[in-house]
Amino acid sequence: MSNDEQLHAMRHSLAHITASAVKKLWPEAKFGVGPVVDNGFYYDIDLGELKISESDFKRIEKEMRGIVNQAQEFEHFDMPIDQAIDWARQNGQPYKEELLNDLKRSGTTIAKDLDVSELGLATDGESAVETVSFYKNGDFVDLCRGPHVANTKDVGAFKLQRVAGAYWRGKEGNPQMQRLYGVAFETKEELDEYLVRMEEAKLRDHRKLGKELDLYTVSPLVGPGLPLFTPRGTVLRDIMSTYSNQLRQRYGFQKVWTPHITKKELYETSGHWAKFGDELFLVTSQETSDNFALKPMNCPHHTQIYASSPRSYKDMPVRFLETTTDYRDEKTGELGGLNRVRSLTQDDSHVFARPDQIEQEINNLLASARELYATIDMKLRVRLSYRDGGEGYLGDISLWETAQAQLKQAVLANELDYFEQDGEAAFYGPKIDFMATDAIGREHQVATVQLDFVQPQRFGLTYTDAEGNAAQPVMIHCALLGSIERFLSVFIEHTAGWFPFWAAPEQLRILTINDTVLDYVDEIKAVLNETVLMQPVRFNEIRFTVDDRNESLGKKIREAAKNKIPVQLIVGQQDKDAREVSVRTQKGEEKVSLDTLGEYLKAI
Amino acid sequence: MSNDEQLHAMRHSLAHITASAVKKLWPEAKFGVGPVVDNGFYYDIDLGELKISESDFKRIEKEMRGIVNQAQEFEHFDMPIDQAIDWARQNGQPYKEELLNDLKRSGTTIAKDLDVSELGLATDGESAVETVSFYKNGDFVDLCRGPHVANTKDVGAFKLQRVAGAYWRGKEGNPQMQRLYGVAFETKEELDEYLVRMEEAKLRDHRKLGKELDLYTVSPLVGPGLPLFTPRGTVLRDIMSTYSNQLRQRYGFQKVWTPHITKKELYETSGHWAKFGDELFLVTSQETSDNFALKPMNCPHHTQIYASSPRSYKDMPVRFLETTTDYRDEKTGELGGLNRVRSLTQDDSHVFARPDQIEQEINNLLASARELYATIDMKLRVRLSYRDGGEGYLGDISLWETAQAQLKQAVLANELDYFEQDGEAAFYGPKIDFMATDAIGREHQVATVQLDFVQPQRFGLTYTDAEGNAAQPVMIHCALLGSIERFLSVFIEHTAGWFPFWAAPEQLRILTINDTVLDYVDEIKAVLNETVLMQPVRFNEIRFTVDDRNESLGKKIREAAKNKIPVQLIVGQQDKDAREVSVRTQKGEEKVSLDTLGEYLKAI
Repeated sequence: MSNDEQLHAMRHSLAHITASAVKKLWPEAKFGVGPVVDNGFYYDIDLGELKISESDFKRIEKEMRGIVNQAQEFEHFDMPIDQAIDWARQNGQPYKEELLNDLKRSGTTIAKDLDVSELGLATDGESAVETVSFYKNGDFVDLCRGPHVANTKDVGAFKLQRVAGAYWRGKEGNPQMQRLYGVAFETKEELDEYLVRMEEAKLRDHRKLGKELDLYTVSPLVGPGLPLFTPRGTVLRDIMSTYSNQLRQRYGFQKVWTPHITKKELYETSGHWAKFGDELFLVTSQETSDNFALKPMNCPHHTQIYASSPRSYKDMPVRFLETTTDYRDEKTGELGGLNRVRSLTQDDSHVFARPDQIEQEINNLLASARELYATIDMKLRVRLSYRDGGEGYLGDISLWETAQAQLKQAVLANELDYFEQDGEAAFYGPKIDFMATDAIGREHQVATVQLDFVQPQRFGLTYTDAEGNAAQPVMIHCALLGSIERFLSVFIEHTAGWFPFWAAPEQLRILTINDTVLDYVDEIKAVLNETVLMQPVRFNEIRFTVDDRNESLGKKIREAAKNKIPVQLIVGQQDKDAREVSVRTQKGEEKVSLDTLGEYLKAI
Repeated sequence: MSNDEQLHAMRHSLAHITASAVKKLWPEAKFGVGPVVDNGFYYDIDLGELKISESDFKRIEKEMRGIVNQAQEFEHFDMPIDQAIDWARQNGQPYKEELLNDLKRSGTTIAKDLDVSELGLATDGESAVETVSFYKNGDFVDLCRGPHVANTKDVGAFKLQRVAGAYWRGKEGNPQMQRLYGVAFETKEELDEYLVRMEEAKLRDHRKLGKELDLYTVSPLVGPGLPLFTPRGTVLRDIMSTYSNQLRQRYGFQKVWTPHITKKELYETSGHWAKFGDELFLVTSQETSDNFALKPMNCPHHTQIYASSPRSYKDMPVRFLETTTDYRDEKTGELGGLNRVRSLTQDDSHVFARPDQIEQEINNLLASARELYATIDMKLRVRLSYRDGGEGYLGDISLWETAQAQLKQAVLANELDYFEQDGEAAFYGPKIDFMATDAIGREHQVATVQLDFVQPQRFGLTYTDAEGNAAQPVMIHCALLGSIERFLSVFIEHTAGWFPFWAAPEQLRILTINDTVLDYVDEIKAVLNETVLMQPVRFNEIRFTVDDRNESLGKKIREAAKNKIPVQLIVGQQDKDAREVSVRTQKGEEKVSLDTLGEYLKAI
């Protein structure tokens, strides 16, 4: 067993131990599923009217430690499926019974449905199964494929974390269960380190900071997963989108604009309707019989702009850029803050290139991504996702091979930290996925660059090659930020709300010491209004306010710090007399003359 | 009869004369309705398989002139409704019969349905009618409320214009009729002048220019009324939206961002659901039972941002700005070019103000509108739309009176050409509508500024007044461009595609005379890349291309003119030697030294 497999078995065993403990305390407990998740595990439990709260965690953990200390063996055995169904019925486990009945009909339904793989289910195909796998520790028996650790004493360090409501099988309308989460690591040190990091993460939680810094709001009238951005949050959206656009515009990308809906015929042609049709928001016209969908991605729309003009090999590549909002029909339970939303704004781009242009174009996009994440001080690492020997990849094999080599070449040329993975390509082409590490060590998937051999073919896109024949372009999809909403959730937590000077919604606040300086403040404002930042975003005008209330300087400074204003200009009579200002940043305070203030700010 | 009423009667009488003529030529013709429209009239005709084409216009017009020359009297008489239904049946007029049957049931259904008022229908309320009004000229009898001219010789100058398909009552699925359009004026001179203007308008048709200048495209896969903007068209969209935003940002407007969909609860609260629910695009979630709609306007969304923070009288006014796309479920038959679309992008803003701030805020908005339309050289005139003595206006009467006075005060202060109209206010508040006249004399409704006393109340919006009590703000809706798509249709036709230098998608093209100047072209490019226009749009970078093909200068100039590039820089060996360029614009050609080129362009 590798370390990863070992840790997985430990966490999975802890899910069983949690259930054993709950059953000891509440023998009437009915169990759903108990899979491993990031950093730990959960178990879905139905206790009827009884609600578990955090105050119960201590005694559940005590029971769990008891089971660990008893050093129970995890025993594995198989049971014929009909006997297993009887077992579930006799033990008052209706959810297990339902799973087993599903399993009897078809081996895959359940796992797909629940998106977990540790259900004791022999999921090798669509055929019905005859026997199922069980594990037993002490007197607790559970339907389970395993694997587990050998003995309950081998489960490492753990802690119950939280309890949340969850519909059975994730479906609204099904019974609501209690999902009891735990975290677990091999050693106490690792667990403690994780818990400290979680404390830090809690302070940085973008939902908390989003409210404190007035960045966005949600309205029950508008709906979950549909955040509305206040002026401050809108500055962040715009500045990041502008930056991402400017990085590509220097390589010849041009903005286009497409509507947010389309007739379903567009997705029938692209193939998305067959593949993702039931994940779309459907739009009905009451005036006509047209059927529309909200766009969940922009590539099919962009193909129609490409197709609107004849293209020659000399016109290639054609590079479109559009920051636009896509809509995805996420389940309500999965929505939270900006991390997962229904309205996701992509800083999307599509290159239509000749095959010989792929490497240069990828190069440009990698350079853009590298610059962006270096600017915001996040470490990048990329995954080169290739095809494997399997079926289902579309497009010419030699095109794939050349393209994969070109991708790697571009990654090497950009000196990016990378790893390669076969079998991770999309069916329509190989890709590069970017992972960025935040200030507290968490890795987030952000940008992506994907080759696409399929859509140009499905839409019959062509250009006239040097010999006058119709040739097929390759498409290169790219988003540098990914979804702006999700990016902001990462960016807020990465910076803990202390946005860099160029990106901050309110970059600067003038704090007056008393009223005698108001005329001097007007002079300072004139300087600020004339100052335009050119790095990293071009034509970035200074966003500032003046706090000239009749309050103490101490109070003004405390409020500016609470609002995380990166630069504060403190102005008193002495500053006025000396024609300077006191510049206060997180690094300290220094005097700057009014004459050089503009240059000083440009250099921050 | 006023002049307007006289012209209306003439055009309406011509609709009858057209039908008389058609009936003479094709006695089996079945007639729908024949109302007056801008500059003329139409009549809907069902001729079965027989299709009228423009080649038939001559003989129809000949019959019409015959009827005019016969100087037939228009005789008016009433008929009991049941007798009228018999008349329609006996005369093989099933459409008239249907109208009469509807009318018998309820006096208003038909007129609302067809949006025309000259149907001979006594539409004074919802009650059934007993007699209907008819007009007769020669042996042609038609159901009609009138009024008409006294005699067919009094109809002025006319011309048949075009014929188009139209569903009976505008409903897909109903029989398709032929809509025969005519234009008519009191004098031959006015008609001729109009026809010349129409020829000019045809050359300027934005659908034609949109294609020639590659500004936008439509795709049958995406759907009608959902234009996609190419890079050139997107520049126009962006530059106009940026300008419109910058004009308001100097008055403290701040950008916000809202999603394009909302739960229907938002519109139930705002009142739009009850009033416009059947005109919305409905959005269905397949994952949840949530019901959404695409937003047809942005005010309800913006109220939710206002409501997300407590507001004090010192924070007022709060000013939100958002260029965002709304969706309206227009009938397919009404869609054409950019003039009427389903995806309309509004440069929308909402002020939440104390009542004492209305005048100043209106003032700012009027100043912005005035500046914008002066910049693009369109004459503005405004309508002050007040309430009348009728019922149905919401909000306190004294608030209305103060507000109407403030609106007028602001219009006077801005020295705008205006007229006042009672009874044209929205039920929620008085408003100012802007009409702009284009280069060939057509007037288009563009910007609007509307007061709203109702939504703040329905959403329970408040601010804390100086006494610490909750007070209700007033909302001020404003769009300077209106819908950007519609604005562009006007702007393209107004300029005939010769966009002003600052707005042109491609502002400048360098035309080389031969290859020896390529290094000098690089120097010129460096100057252009450094040049940023600040008027009327701030931070407007120069958009240029280089035509260094091995083609004759004459050909390059012809192509640049065809593409309506406002500035062409012609560069030959002599220019290089003298370190200057030949600047060619619509006004002529002159030499400019490279040193002063940047300043020269900034001053255009």
